Amino acid sequence: MKKNKAPNSTQFVIFGGSGDLSRAKLIPALFKLSVRDILPRQFSLIALDRQHENRKDFIDDLENSLPETLPEVFTREEWKNFKSNIDYLKLDFNQEAGYRRLQERLNEIETASELPSKRVFYLATSPKFFPVIATGLQKSGLNNTTQPGWPRLVIEKPFGHDLNTACEYNDRITDIYPEENIYRIDHYLGKAMIQNILTMRFANMFFEPIWNKNYIDNIQIISTERMGIKNRGKYYDRAGALLDMVQSHLLQMLALIAMEPPADMSTASIRQEKIKVLCSLPELGPENVEENVVLGQYSGRKEGQEYIKGYQEEDNVRPDSSTETFAAIKLNIDNLRWQGVPFYLKTGKRLQTKNTKIFVQFKTDFHPSLRGADSPEANLLIIKVQPREGVSLQFNAKEPGSQDKIAPVFMDFCQEAPRELKETPAAYEELLAGLFRGDQSLFTHWQGVKNSWQFIDSLRKSAEKIDLTPEKYEAGSRGPEAAKNLIQSESRIWWDRKNINRHSPV
Amino acid sequence: MKKNKAPNSTQFVIFGGSGDLSRAKLIPALFKLSVRDILPRQFSLIALDRQHENRKDFIDDLENSLPETLPEVFTREEWKNFKSNIDYLKLDFNQEAGYRRLQERLNEIETASELPSKRVFYLATSPKFFPVIATGLQKSGLNNTTQPGWPRLVIEKPFGHDLNTACEYNDRITDIYPEENIYRIDHYLGKAMIQNILTMRFANMFFEPIWNKNYIDNIQIISTERMGIKNRGKYYDRAGALLDMVQSHLLQMLALIAMEPPADMSTASIRQEKIKVLCSLPELGPENVEENVVLGQYSGRKEGQEYIKGYQEEDNVRPDSSTETFAAIKLNIDNLRWQGVPFYLKTGKRLQTKNTKIFVQFKTDFHPSLRGADSPEANLLIIKVQPREGVSLQFNAKEPGSQDKIAPVFMDFCQEAPRELKETPAAYEELLAGLFRGDQSLFTHWQGVKNSWQFIDSLRKSAEKIDLTPEKYEAGSRGPEAAKNLIQSESRIWWDRKNINRHSPV
Repeated sequence: MKKNKAPNSTQFVIFGGSGDLSRAKLIPALFKLSVRDILPRQFSLIALDRQHENRKDFIDDLENSLPETLPEVFTREEWKNFKSNIDYLKLDFNQEAGYRRLQERLNEIETASELPSKRVFYLATSPKFFPVIATGLQKSGLNNTTQPGWPRLVIEKPFGHDLNTACEYNDRITDIYPEENIYRIDHYLGKAMIQNILTMRFANMFFEPIWNKNYIDNIQIISTERMGIKNRGKYYDRAGALLDMVQSHLLQMLALIAMEPPADMSTASIRQEKIKVLCSLPELGPENVEENVVLGQYSGRKEGQEYIKGYQEEDNVRPDSSTETFAAIKLNIDNLRWQGVPFYLKTGKRLQTKNTKIFVQFKTDFHPSLRGADSPEANLLIIKVQPREGVSLQFNAKEPGSQDKIAPVFMDFCQEAPRELKETPAAYEELLAGLFRGDQSLFTHWQGVKNSWQFIDSLRKSAEKIDLTPEKYEAGSRGPEAAKNLIQSESRIWWDRKNINRHSPV
Repeated sequence: MKKNKAPNSTQFVIFGGSGDLSRAKLIPALFKLSVRDILPRQFSLIALDRQHENRKDFIDDLENSLPETLPEVFTREEWKNFKSNIDYLKLDFNQEAGYRRLQERLNEIETASELPSKRVFYLATSPKFFPVIATGLQKSGLNNTTQPGWPRLVIEKPFGHDLNTACEYNDRITDIYPEENIYRIDHYLGKAMIQNILTMRFANMFFEPIWNKNYIDNIQIISTERMGIKNRGKYYDRAGALLDMVQSHLLQMLALIAMEPPADMSTASIRQEKIKVLCSLPELGPENVEENVVLGQYSGRKEGQEYIKGYQEEDNVRPDSSTETFAAIKLNIDNLRWQGVPFYLKTGKRLQTKNTKIFVQFKTDFHPSLRGADSPEANLLIIKVQPREGVSLQFNAKEPGSQDKIAPVFMDFCQEAPRELKETPAAYEELLAGLFRGDQSLFTHWQGVKNSWQFIDSLRKSAEKIDLTPEKYEAGSRGPEAAKNLIQSESRIWWDRKNINRHSPV
């Protein structure tokens, strides 16, 4: 759709070069891009932190951790080549001197290569360092525009814990970089099937004509996990499921599913339509939240010899914490296309299955002769994001044999599907390739982030007002009872791999 | 859809009990129905011919041929049980006495079982015997209605070689049986995917909204064979592809694809809508035939050591025969739904592949930003009739990896599809089960047959008028060049398994 190309050269600077993100995702993804030969031709990586003595020290440490994340490639010749492009600089985010040394190092590289300065600053740090790094970059002139759109600044979500703090962080960054230089990562947008939503909708005759309130009964956007909060108690207890999942991932998916066709396939046009959807989200007042929102928190459970901790027992979580680890929300988008079509969002930790899927459920006003006791089931379009990626259609067919029974069957990406479709690159690879190309449609625009925050803030305030505390659910269960009621009271059910037709490959 | 049930008892009489059809299809299908336990509870079969001395003689002969058609079941206990219900009667179709003996035999069985008379007369003979058998049945009173819809008379297509002779045969039969007692076999209508067309169209939200000229570019109904005419020269040289395939199978498929939703799912309503389509077929005048019809005839070819005979060299074929073994036809259905949508029919012997499929090709007026050099390909819905049965959708998805290329991918019934869908019963089983249930929607109505004949007759007359002789094509090729031009002149192509995306499971 978009024709931008990766530049010939890039100087890639990672703030927090030895953090988890950097080691587990970023450097492996860059390495894989280099193997796939889609890195900029002249590529240098400068890792920054204050833990290591020198480059050798940093690389040793990195290589010690790589067998976990890159077991199959670590030994390859390619890694040695790639490694030769990695540089290290010891830098304290608070000290201006470090930024000046960085500036010098970058200048050296660019002078040596005789290629223009195309720098990426990747803030792989806790958001609390964003302001101080911004200051450092600004004071040393590292924010100066060299060419339109350069240097590029990449920041990780989530930043802030409500609209106000998010605005604060964002203001600090947009003070020194124009929006077109800023790439806000939401790694869900890098997943192959999420990227496919727009293609499926607008490059096919099958879907767009029926993509509206006339044919669609409801849409479910579901992302559940079996894991708990792992070692992220400190962050999570402040964030909760609303911030950690809904505000970012789920609403981004919603925007792609619900948006109008963009004027063209440019970043600007796509962003504009996504923002329009996020602007149309309802303000959730107290009565609204009471009816349409369910929060939950997992409690402990014995599993054989093992005990699975309840949320309040996790490390770095307040023992009386009322942070939600589960959220289910019903909302409407009040525009011509979606009037009256409920969107159900659901996410949670320590649930029965790990499962990120979008279910588009179609209406069942079939031919009157087909209704009744044996009425065919609703058609479903299932966009599978993880653990497996793919698309399924549930449709109705006559059951073979001499009965006239109609039964649901599935169409799915088959084994015969293109090999490439099964070996989809990891989300970070997609996003970094998009970053090099300058494809901002894979990243979130501030306006969209802001609208999402407004929605979540209004929800939270109303929840406080009506004293909505999370309902306990057992670890490994399907979540709080109230979530079931939320959807069953409207004669619908949450779709998951258990209740879909047993033949389903979901 | 239909709730009719099989009767408790049936007396099943086969005229031509030792013919190919009877041995290869009919008796194996009845046996399989008995194994599946969906035969009428009290079932007796009376085979009629004049070749055998007695029941033992007939059964011996039958069992000698069974290992070919039923290798896996012949030895089973169930066969012995089934065999005990087979009776034999030596009968010369021309002699009245035989019919009287048949009448007596049937009366005996019915008296013994104390169940009502529910007789089926299956004419598994050459159509030239239809009139004499009809006379015999009438004279002996075997045509007398015992209960509404009984006795049932089953006749095999094709009967007649043009509208006039078909009318003759039909008149003779409808003289003695009402239409509701007559079951005209078109074995394509027994194939699982053909039976599925109406279910797919009317029991799903996906298809009906886009099943019209606004979204569909063209529809191709294709049935090709690798085999020649085998030992059927005598029949085929008079019939040709137009009679053998187009007049019956292809136009029946067309009717199911193009028909309007019936008022209900009853036989009468479905037939009515099918007939409406066949009534809307254009009269093909000479100028029309010149433009829209291509006939072909295969010529011989050396294949390694072997020589594949040309049509004119086949046994029982006139050496100067101008019978067509290939036909390609473009036609329009001039109604509100289909105005301007071309239907392309194609059939032939000795072609590259054995393949019966319906291709519904959708329009490509995608989002303007997606058009151009890399424009996505047309969506296809592929209904696969044989050799494999199933449904595929070709749709467009983003190619994974960091390119923005859109590529066609396939959804298909997967290995995870219900086991039953892979072991679809043979067409004759389906049809016989339909016969017992009294489901005439699986059989052709005279009005539809007549309309098909009118279309073929007008086509043939015009072809004679303009002296349209079949174009030669090499055995094993893709058919005459003119057929390619017929569709390419409109910037379309014939779909087949070779030109569909190579990843396709077609």
